[in-house]
Amino acid sequence: MKTIDGGICAAKGFTAAGMHAGIKPGTSPDRNDLALIYSEVPCQAAGMFTTNRVKADPVKLDMDHLKDGKAQAIIANSFIANACAPEGPETAKREAEALGKALSLDPDDILVSSTGVIGQRLNVEAIETAIPELISRLSKDGSDAAAHSIMTTDTVKKERAVEFTVGGKTAHLGGITKGSGMIHPHMGTMLCYLTTDVKISSAVLKKALQETVRRTFNRISVDGDMSTNDTCIILANGLTGNAEIEEGSEDYNSFLEAMLSVTTYLARLMASDGEGASHLMTCVVKGARNEETAETIAKSVINSSLTKAAIFGEDANWGRVLCAAGYSGADFDPDKTDISFSSKAGTIPVCEAGKGLDFDEDLAKKVLSEEEVIIEIDLHEGDAEVTCWGCDLTYDYVKINGDYRT
Amino acid sequence: MKTIDGGICAAKGFTAAGMHAGIKPGTSPDRNDLALIYSEVPCQAAGMFTTNRVKADPVKLDMDHLKDGKAQAIIANSFIANACAPEGPETAKREAEALGKALSLDPDDILVSSTGVIGQRLNVEAIETAIPELISRLSKDGSDAAAHSIMTTDTVKKERAVEFTVGGKTAHLGGITKGSGMIHPHMGTMLCYLTTDVKISSAVLKKALQETVRRTFNRISVDGDMSTNDTCIILANGLTGNAEIEEGSEDYNSFLEAMLSVTTYLARLMASDGEGASHLMTCVVKGARNEETAETIAKSVINSSLTKAAIFGEDANWGRVLCAAGYSGADFDPDKTDISFSSKAGTIPVCEAGKGLDFDEDLAKKVLSEEEVIIEIDLHEGDAEVTCWGCDLTYDYVKINGDYRT
Repeated sequence: MKTIDGGICAAKGFTAAGMHAGIKPGTSPDRNDLALIYSEVPCQAAGMFTTNRVKADPVKLDMDHLKDGKAQAIIANSFIANACAPEGPETAKREAEALGKALSLDPDDILVSSTGVIGQRLNVEAIETAIPELISRLSKDGSDAAAHSIMTTDTVKKERAVEFTVGGKTAHLGGITKGSGMIHPHMGTMLCYLTTDVKISSAVLKKALQETVRRTFNRISVDGDMSTNDTCIILANGLTGNAEIEEGSEDYNSFLEAMLSVTTYLARLMASDGEGASHLMTCVVKGARNEETAETIAKSVINSSLTKAAIFGEDANWGRVLCAAGYSGADFDPDKTDISFSSKAGTIPVCEAGKGLDFDEDLAKKVLSEEEVIIEIDLHEGDAEVTCWGCDLTYDYVKINGDYRT
Repeated sequence: MKTIDGGICAAKGFTAAGMHAGIKPGTSPDRNDLALIYSEVPCQAAGMFTTNRVKADPVKLDMDHLKDGKAQAIIANSFIANACAPEGPETAKREAEALGKALSLDPDDILVSSTGVIGQRLNVEAIETAIPELISRLSKDGSDAAAHSIMTTDTVKKERAVEFTVGGKTAHLGGITKGSGMIHPHMGTMLCYLTTDVKISSAVLKKALQETVRRTFNRISVDGDMSTNDTCIILANGLTGNAEIEEGSEDYNSFLEAMLSVTTYLARLMASDGEGASHLMTCVVKGARNEETAETIAKSVINSSLTKAAIFGEDANWGRVLCAAGYSGADFDPDKTDISFSSKAGTIPVCEAGKGLDFDEDLAKKVLSEEEVIIEIDLHEGDAEVTCWGCDLTYDYVKINGDYRT
């Protein structure tokens, strides 16, 4: 497996486009707000969506359109979430119908996504007007424009692709995603699109997606706020020409490895580009009696406002880490727990068997001043290990979110 | 019932003291770090403590000392939490023994509390040295000094007392508490001491305390981080001379009303004085099918970083409120939900039946600029109503916690 260029257009038969359709105010070319992803042939498709009881209307539409496990195009806008908005269901439906008509596809094979402010009406007329231009821009180079079109407060584009082998054939998998606030996914995450050219049934694709999301996007958090619009969709068009991938086969494992490679990269990028973030905060919990315990503790640590503020302050305040582990609800013995901080600059053990160690504050400061800081917690109770990713809590997070809507 | 002065010394037979014992660095008289609360006669006592799996050593000691439902004095320090600290258990034990000896009390009748940094050794020798001076300062005017001695990042002293009637006798109840970060109590909260002169058994006292804490301290949050040291203790010395209060009686209800009056005041003060806070954020959920649903939703809203940042920005971003209700895990129908913001400056309905309303942004800004902002959520599904209290997320929260330890 190797990393390649091309993002969501890396897989055979996929093209993409992005443009400014006038949903975002202003006319600057970096104000892209509408993306299109298209496969030249029908795809097996699977999606995972927010488990928030308040679901955006495009999420509800996609859940319906994916019942048959098939799709061929995705249209997505930024700036307005089309959640709790006037005419929300009609708006999502109109998008699917207009794009289906223009591409000569059944509207049921179109998926629709939105991200942005909750509660405001989406300018669907602007989208309908833009669709012919958007289609004319579809190209193998379109992943970059599409990735930019779904950004809101993101500061970097999030795109990744790999090449790998299934059944002796060269296959491809690529993805784009966006963050960067209201990120605490469960069952999917805010707008992630994956494309691949492998041949696989939608049922097996769904299994692979569930496994992947569980181990990547469901293990990041920026602010503990689960969105109304979380969406992770994968399209597989079969153009690799491989024998269909069966669950549990060697090919399935290769495919899963490719999925994990792309989504782990994207998930880490979402965490490190969390709103206002100055540090990627990686929490590794090892020596756990099972994966659930490790994940519960790691998630509690990356969500702790006090730990996040300490990482911002580059302060080795491990007491907050152990405290967050303690209130996580997981069953473990604090008196066996070791904690260390590490980064490119070195490793500092700070707590052994639940008690503080003397450590060099200057070296600690140096370790914590690196962009990625790893908090390692060893429970010494078993073999399970889980990694979760978050970011620090900064002045800029408060600034961005104190005045996002207006 | 009426509010009176005197705090924890308002009840007959209680005195208190506070001083600088040298646990906090510096010698300024406003660096008080050691408090003492004393009853001239033995008390029925009850306590509730953190449910964090990582418990500070004084918490463990108090749980043990309260097994017999009796206590007579409380010693508490700020600056060092005596949690996960070298010699933690011995330190807590030494404090109880030294104070017991000096007051001629059984150490089992002494309760010990600490608050501050986790993982560092508490200077118990300084406490042992200070005890004679601390005892000499005990007075009916000592509540103020004691309340100041338990403050860490608190900006205001938190003290309250009421006078009420039980069985025709005039009774008193007073309390002091401290916040102001790592506040997300469950089963108690960071250092709250209540004193009363009513006659009541420790078993009935415990019931009243549980009911009170459930409806007050367990309904506030500053940052979602549950402390290792949360402690809420009540001492009742019986000097009112009333017939013993029986559970469920009219006197019990009067006592509970007094408890709720004092603790609601203190809980609101803790929320409004949350680290860095510029607004008290009150969330009222009404029309719920049961109290649990209402509480789950209200807590989710006051804990939402995005909602907290919007309140800081005085931005009527109700989509974040509905979103937080949606991911709370509570069962409700978003399509029936109404939301409004209100304050002394007026009321702004912003969402009706799950959809956004047009509203006057200028008036909204005015409403949200008041110190207390009330977010009212009406589910229209039943009669249950719950109020929870939090605070906004500000630059100062990040500043305080980016560099608290060093």
